[in-house]
Amino acid sequence: MDWERFEKQKDFILEIDKEKEIYRQTHITGAARHENDSEHAWHMAVMTWLLAEYSNEKIDVARTMMMTLVHDLVEIYAGDTYAYDTKGKETQELREKEAADRLFGMLPEDQGKELRSLWEEFEKYETAEARFAHVMDNFQPMLLNDSNGGIDWEEHKIARRQVEKRNEKTATGSKEIWDYMRSVIDKNVEKGSLKGE
Amino acid sequence: MDWERFEKQKDFILEIDKEKEIYRQTHITGAARHENDSEHAWHMAVMTWLLAEYSNEKIDVARTMMMTLVHDLVEIYAGDTYAYDTKGKETQELREKEAADRLFGMLPEDQGKELRSLWEEFEKYETAEARFAHVMDNFQPMLLNDSNGGIDWEEHKIARRQVEKRNEKTATGSKEIWDYMRSVIDKNVEKGSLKGE
Repeated sequence: MDWERFEKQKDFILEIDKEKEIYRQTHITGAARHENDSEHAWHMAVMTWLLAEYSNEKIDVARTMMMTLVHDLVEIYAGDTYAYDTKGKETQELREKEAADRLFGMLPEDQGKELRSLWEEFEKYETAEARFAHVMDNFQPMLLNDSNGGIDWEEHKIARRQVEKRNEKTATGSKEIWDYMRSVIDKNVEKGSLKGE
Repeated sequence: MDWERFEKQKDFILEIDKEKEIYRQTHITGAARHENDSEHAWHMAVMTWLLAEYSNEKIDVARTMMMTLVHDLVEIYAGDTYAYDTKGKETQELREKEAADRLFGMLPEDQGKELRSLWEEFEKYETAEARFAHVMDNFQPMLLNDSNGGIDWEEHKIARRQVEKRNEKTATGSKEIWDYMRSVIDKNVEKGSLKGE
């Protein structure tokens, strides 16, 4: 065994444990507490396996799952930027790029490059896998929020147009899941959890 | 879209959210709180991708990752049985079998069967993938516990022979990782976190 290589992998494994303390705006079902990034990633990966049949294009399921598992790792240093935080969004790209340099730089070069390229693929939103991973990234919190009666939208006074803007490319990943998501949006506007404007 | 199929998948996705509230004996790094099953599964899946090169036999990495992601789902109904809880271990098999019937039965038949068979493969411990998934299942909490100075072992007054018994098949999955784990055990016995008997 190449111990130097193994040490780097082990240090990275312990470093990413911090993702368990990056809390998101979404609440878990039952709303007892906020969800953290590692839970969100786990849920997205299992959902990818279950829902891949609804992708518009055939995807490499394993690659997409790995993409979902690591897509938020940079938030360990860059923090979570809420989907509807316009101010945070301005600096997000730079913060996350610096975080990627630091985090993926901990790994043996081959693995660091591979994970970084998977994260960049997700960010660029250009492949079928990235498109589907983004569907999961938006559908997962919507499902939880809807199961909690839309409290996350209520708390932040979110409007339909903001959700639609955030999901402007969701139908490019899965028309079918986006159809369902639109029905969730309509229902929450009707009952007042989401502003109708 | 077959809406009946989609509803089953959606209900299952929301049901497994409960894994985020199944807490384990292991603490996250920094020891601020216990770790939950979904965090443990996420960590194991990423570790599988990173450490697959140390498997004794070549493994299907994607299949092993999916196995790690779902291996503890039955605990949603059956509860977590601590590795060193001899009384709980007596009823664990029956409790988990009933839980599997109930949980995987929620899914469309094809997917329910596939996930159940993946879980059974893990439990049976007979394939290279199951052997490596078990290495991850034991190495992940050991890494966290060691990073916290061995507090989980101290708290439960665990002895070396118990850890060795739990890991009696670990070397069949990865001789190299087991070599490292033995050094962690030795270190913790030396400093008194693990009883030497």
